[in-house]
Amino acid sequence: MSQRADGRAAHDMRPVSISRGWLDAGEGSVLVSFGKTTVLCVASFTEGVPRWRKDTGLGWVTAEYSMLPRATDERSARESVKGKIGGRTHEISRLIGRALRACVDMRALGENTIQLDCDVLRADGGTRTASITGAFAALADAVDWAVGKGIVKPRRPVFSDTVSAVSVGVVDGRPVLDLPYEEDSRADTDMNVVATGAGQFIEIQGTAERAPFSRGELGELLDLAAIGTAHLAAVQKEALTGENPIDPRIVAGWEDR
Amino acid sequence: MSQRADGRAAHDMRPVSISRGWLDAGEGSVLVSFGKTTVLCVASFTEGVPRWRKDTGLGWVTAEYSMLPRATDERSARESVKGKIGGRTHEISRLIGRALRACVDMRALGENTIQLDCDVLRADGGTRTASITGAFAALADAVDWAVGKGIVKPRRPVFSDTVSAVSVGVVDGRPVLDLPYEEDSRADTDMNVVATGAGQFIEIQGTAERAPFSRGELGELLDLAAIGTAHLAAVQKEALTGENPIDPRIVAGWEDR
Amino acid sequence: MSQRADGRAAHDMRPVSISRGWLDAGEGSVLVSFGKTTVLCVASFTEGVPRWRKDTGLGWVTAEYSMLPRATDERSARESVKGKIGGRTHEISRLIGRALRACVDMRALGENTIQLDCDVLRADGGTRTASITGAFAALADAVDWAVGKGIVKPRRPVFSDTVSAVSVGVVDGRPVLDLPYEEDSRADTDMNVVATGAGQFIEIQGTAERAPFSRGELGELLDLAAIGTAHLAAVQKEALTGENPIDPRIVAGWEDR
Amino acid sequence: MSQRADGRAAHDMRPVSISRGWLDAGEGSVLVSFGKTTVLCVASFTEGVPRWRKDTGLGWVTAEYSMLPRATDERSARESVKGKIGGRTHEISRLIGRALRACVDMRALGENTIQLDCDVLRADGGTRTASITGAFAALADAVDWAVGKGIVKPRRPVFSDTVSAVSVGVVDGRPVLDLPYEEDSRADTDMNVVATGAGQFIEIQGTAERAPFSRGELGELLDLAAIGTAHLAAVQKEALTGENPIDPRIVAGWEDR
Amino acid sequence: MSQRADGRAAHDMRPVSISRGWLDAGEGSVLVSFGKTTVLCVASFTEGVPRWRKDTGLGWVTAEYSMLPRATDERSARESVKGKIGGRTHEISRLIGRALRACVDMRALGENTIQLDCDVLRADGGTRTASITGAFAALADAVDWAVGKGIVKPRRPVFSDTVSAVSVGVVDGRPVLDLPYEEDSRADTDMNVVATGAGQFIEIQGTAERAPFSRGELGELLDLAAIGTAHLAAVQKEALTGENPIDPRIVAGWEDR
Amino acid sequence: MSQRADGRAAHDMRPVSISRGWLDAGEGSVLVSFGKTTVLCVASFTEGVPRWRKDTGLGWVTAEYSMLPRATDERSARESVKGKIGGRTHEISRLIGRALRACVDMRALGENTIQLDCDVLRADGGTRTASITGAFAALADAVDWAVGKGIVKPRRPVFSDTVSAVSVGVVDGRPVLDLPYEEDSRADTDMNVVATGAGQFIEIQGTAERAPFSRGELGELLDLAAIGTAHLAAVQKEALTGENPIDPRIVAGWEDR
Repeated sequence: MSQRADGRAAHDMRPVSISRGWLDAGEGSVLVSFGKTTVLCVASFTEGVPRWRKDTGLGWVTAEYSMLPRATDERSARESVKGKIGGRTHEISRLIGRALRACVDMRALGENTIQLDCDVLRADGGTRTASITGAFAALADAVDWAVGKGIVKPRRPVFSDTVSAVSVGVVDGRPVLDLPYEEDSRADTDMNVVATGAGQFIEIQGTAERAPFSRGELGELLDLAAIGTAHLAAVQKEALTGENPIDPRIVAGWEDR
Repeated sequence: MSQRADGRAAHDMRPVSISRGWLDAGEGSVLVSFGKTTVLCVASFTEGVPRWRKDTGLGWVTAEYSMLPRATDERSARESVKGKIGGRTHEISRLIGRALRACVDMRALGENTIQLDCDVLRADGGTRTASITGAFAALADAVDWAVGKGIVKPRRPVFSDTVSAVSVGVVDGRPVLDLPYEEDSRADTDMNVVATGAGQFIEIQGTAERAPFSRGELGELLDLAAIGTAHLAAVQKEALTGENPIDPRIVAGWEDR
Repeated sequence: MSQRADGRAAHDMRPVSISRGWLDAGEGSVLVSFGKTTVLCVASFTEGVPRWRKDTGLGWVTAEYSMLPRATDERSARESVKGKIGGRTHEISRLIGRALRACVDMRALGENTIQLDCDVLRADGGTRTASITGAFAALADAVDWAVGKGIVKPRRPVFSDTVSAVSVGVVDGRPVLDLPYEEDSRADTDMNVVATGAGQFIEIQGTAERAPFSRGELGELLDLAAIGTAHLAAVQKEALTGENPIDPRIVAGWEDR
Repeated sequence: MSQRADGRAAHDMRPVSISRGWLDAGEGSVLVSFGKTTVLCVASFTEGVPRWRKDTGLGWVTAEYSMLPRATDERSARESVKGKIGGRTHEISRLIGRALRACVDMRALGENTIQLDCDVLRADGGTRTASITGAFAALADAVDWAVGKGIVKPRRPVFSDTVSAVSVGVVDGRPVLDLPYEEDSRADTDMNVVATGAGQFIEIQGTAERAPFSRGELGELLDLAAIGTAHLAAVQKEALTGENPIDPRIVAGWEDR
Repeated sequence: MSQRADGRAAHDMRPVSISRGWLDAGEGSVLVSFGKTTVLCVASFTEGVPRWRKDTGLGWVTAEYSMLPRATDERSARESVKGKIGGRTHEISRLIGRALRACVDMRALGENTIQLDCDVLRADGGTRTASITGAFAALADAVDWAVGKGIVKPRRPVFSDTVSAVSVGVVDGRPVLDLPYEEDSRADTDMNVVATGAGQFIEIQGTAERAPFSRGELGELLDLAAIGTAHLAAVQKEALTGENPIDPRIVAGWEDR
Repeated sequence: MSQRADGRAAHDMRPVSISRGWLDAGEGSVLVSFGKTTVLCVASFTEGVPRWRKDTGLGWVTAEYSMLPRATDERSARESVKGKIGGRTHEISRLIGRALRACVDMRALGENTIQLDCDVLRADGGTRTASITGAFAALADAVDWAVGKGIVKPRRPVFSDTVSAVSVGVVDGRPVLDLPYEEDSRADTDMNVVATGAGQFIEIQGTAERAPFSRGELGELLDLAAIGTAHLAAVQKEALTGENPIDPRIVAGWEDR
């Protein structure tokens, strides 16, 4: 079967990098890239929770996604200048927050809030999946920081598992993994899959952009996604346990090492 | 296995009704209900397309979703009063438009625009799936109206198939179909599936609200969704071909009757 | 003198209907129609009052009016999408609230708030007068609900009288009652009159759309309005005292039956 | 019967002044005062009309009303800072425009637009009535300017009559004319009347602030209003025909002098 | 060297007037004019300070600047109608507040807030400098009012000095003082200087509109500005100590008279 | 005299770096840092000019400034989420655009627009001066790109000189150059100076934050600023003529090398 425009096989990810501590601001700050797509993910830790969650003993994790105006090939207007946030931005911000929360034990976090800011510096497809993958690492660093400071004193792991995300799609009639913009813009079907390190699903969003898809095609796409998220989980683990390793006890299953 | 709170089996839909011509305004107007959930879907046909689509020979279909303030048990503030549209509203409006467009042959529609307005009068879970299901019927009526007027003169069917949607979820550890609010609010996993009359997928959005889900659970949920969307497709067909039947030639596969 | 386009005499109202309990949400919910004009009026009762009214012993009643986008023959953009509420909407919302408050004994209501939502499903002239007339019935149901629950314990009637409203105008040089859109759009003078069941005025808004009007013409218009509001008061009373009658003691003058 | 707090009889207006040419900007600029209430009314003339009115041969007159933040005894926030215009401002702006348009022959004006800006420098009751009364004078000056420049070449009078407005109300059970804030804030009934120089009605807006009012009371209020608007019409005529008189032929009935 | 278009020498100010007590609202209200440029400056005194400044023992002074729509030769749209405040308005509002605060001893003022509203009635260049100059006088009146009422009981002067501002610029290659619009619009360099009565600088904002300027030119411009602000300080002192003199002890250096 | 907290002498700049081609999007993209302060400056070139500038033969250069939420030690809310741009952001955006335009020959640029986006990744004082300094380099790259493509064909240099900016201030009674946040927040006087490579002034903005300043102090601050901008001009020239040198003929005075 023929290669893709960038030389990858259908099941290949683009080169992935996760750089922790990229900024000297933020309790966690990660520059993540999937090929050219580059996102700065910064975690801000604050004690206390929003009013509606007070006195529940539970923490809160939320996210905001944004693109710099010239992240794309054509400059787009700033949402601050337009005076309102578009539907796409809202949708991705909500997705990132929801995906991260799925693996956080809010009781272990205690009444603390972590805000993730995912700012896309360069967009070449997969900005939401790179954001989730990088934001998890920034979030882990922020929790590690708070545990180190003694602000969070978890009796059990804060994270039930790691979280990463990848896109898959049907391009030229063929299922492929981790689509750059060039493939994404002409895909028949486009799917984003958020999964745990153990390979369970957190979120599946599949859309028939051009032609409805069958249960068989869905299966093929999920097989590819599983390859991608397994790879990303490994990159995350390496990044988080390499230099300046986080306390392994905050991720369930890591504490036994 | 025990019944659900409302007496249904896991694979049962709530009573579904699709009332065409509910208002005397709009080129199509449908009151759809899935149990207590009630949505008014109105289609507005206008000749011409938005500027960015001019001179392409292609039509356009778009949608806006909104809830009346007291559709829910607690009154919520109007988005017009708040001065901005929330992320959830944006997300659902985009979903409805995308779902409907997936089965429209834009060349057959020609340079015409159909705007769907889905206003939720009463919300009890499944407002987005009821909206899609009802909006398809209103859209079909609007196309039929335009064909009747000679404004649209399709040489081939405008619709490649019908479109309906249903929610499925894992409640109390058990996969169930078509969740009312009471179940939806405590589901572990929540999934919305948009499908064609032939059972192909148009959109799958599954979210682990509490616990990540496995590929096996995904399969069970999709099985239930297939039951639901097949039922809905039948209800739609009956509604559209019963009293005041639409021209069967505008839906692919119906023309042969 | 010749009939009107719809066959009515100058002093005839269009068919009026007031359906109580139309939705199963809201402490009062009424579908009101004046001919084709159809408005859903829902009352939401909440204990407590806005901050500026706290500790006064007085209640509060307020209203919001809105039109669905395709209530009219031409679709109009949603105010939530435009990001601001237009002058006309503001004006009518304020009018409805003011009209209802004129007959409420705020001390008898106690520190409770009732919010009326009037959403126009179909507009064919007279949407503000139908809204006031229907909203009064929804308000009465909400008060009755609160009295039944023991939340409001009035020592005297909450309502000093009923409230209804009607439009009158000079069309083709002739004063007429209850104008549909076709007449309203070409009226020389247009007047909305809000009155009590006893025939006292609560609000009079008369505008010379084309030609200034004399005191004599004003008199003729008020005569017609008196016919209309007397009729509406009777329809309201019948609706409120027929099936599921409200406690007659909450309306002054009704308690003696 | 006893005097009012400011020594006036029930049928007395406060001192009224109309100063034309108050600013050296604007095609008409009038400082109007009713007692302490002071409004700067500026007319801006532009050739052409809004898009929706093009090629009709008709002109357009519109108005915007605003209060300086400290026009009132308590400072109120600027609407520009709040980011939206309140319902009251909208309502009054619409009223002023409508009132002025009622006496303008749009065909005689030709396809030209006059924008009136009414900015309240000091508010002590009656700001909308002073605005209408002053704006008419500024409007007349702007038309006179355009006729003088040869931009407007009317074959018939542009104004069918003059326009002025006054408030009346029931205070302490007694109908009174031209209410200052102190009376307005405790009136049982409050009515604004816009009338032509000939005493015909252009707009009547009466509201029962506390107690519904009868047809007899309405009559008494209209009698008072007739006294007020007749007085204002005389002050307007004197202001417009005194120093720098406008061309009398632009007002119907004045040309014969 | 030749005169300017309006007959002034390079170092001449336009006629300056400061009318105190112009409105009967506001704790200080000043109409200031620099030639045709006319600004209404109103000070509103309120006890207490914004939340972020509570319990510091310090007062607060802030300002808002705005132009009436027809202050300029061409009408410009209201910012309230546009729904947002432009960059220029923001910038000038911030400048006025900052300039005034530089001479206020916030401890002497105590926890009180004074809000200055500068509304430009007529704009002919120098609106920001006239605003600062007039606002200082209104501010002094408001402080004097509060001292008179015993609300502010300063143990030391509230003002360390007076504050005024003037524009200078290079027009036709020649430095000139106090530019009207006609000069301002074609200046090579434009500078606004805020200074104390003693001639110290509070703010310098110089912009090369067309050609960069040298240190020598800067010196010449500052020389002119010193002439202007000295003149303005004298006019302010005369206005504040003439009729209805303020308590001289609230301005440092004045108390010894 | 003692060193500053970071060990610098009064006339020392922080380490400055200008990295061209930092992103692979944008016709010019520069990462500039002054110490920890880091700004991404991206230039977007588009053919054509805004409507108000059409058919003048002149180009246009404009800028937008923004801070990422966690650029500062405390996270601040996004302006897109707040729905409006703050005064400070507006002010700096306007300053950057004005500063750059001062050295651009708009006729040489022709009817083309260059938009500069300055996004602050990390803020530690001097974000506006770093933005101007980096934006000039991005702008030069964009012009060079357009000349290389043949879109801009200048007969004379597009830039009359280079542009850079630096802050100076009085801290602890001593004038110092290039203030980090720690100094900036407690400075008595704070001044931003924009200058050409030849040392002429483009903009001077000096503010007495605590104590008014004298003409002598102003002189000292300008001496320091001259040291800073001369240094920055040298760094810019090195960056622009080192690797991938721009065409020297687009900067006046460079073409003779």
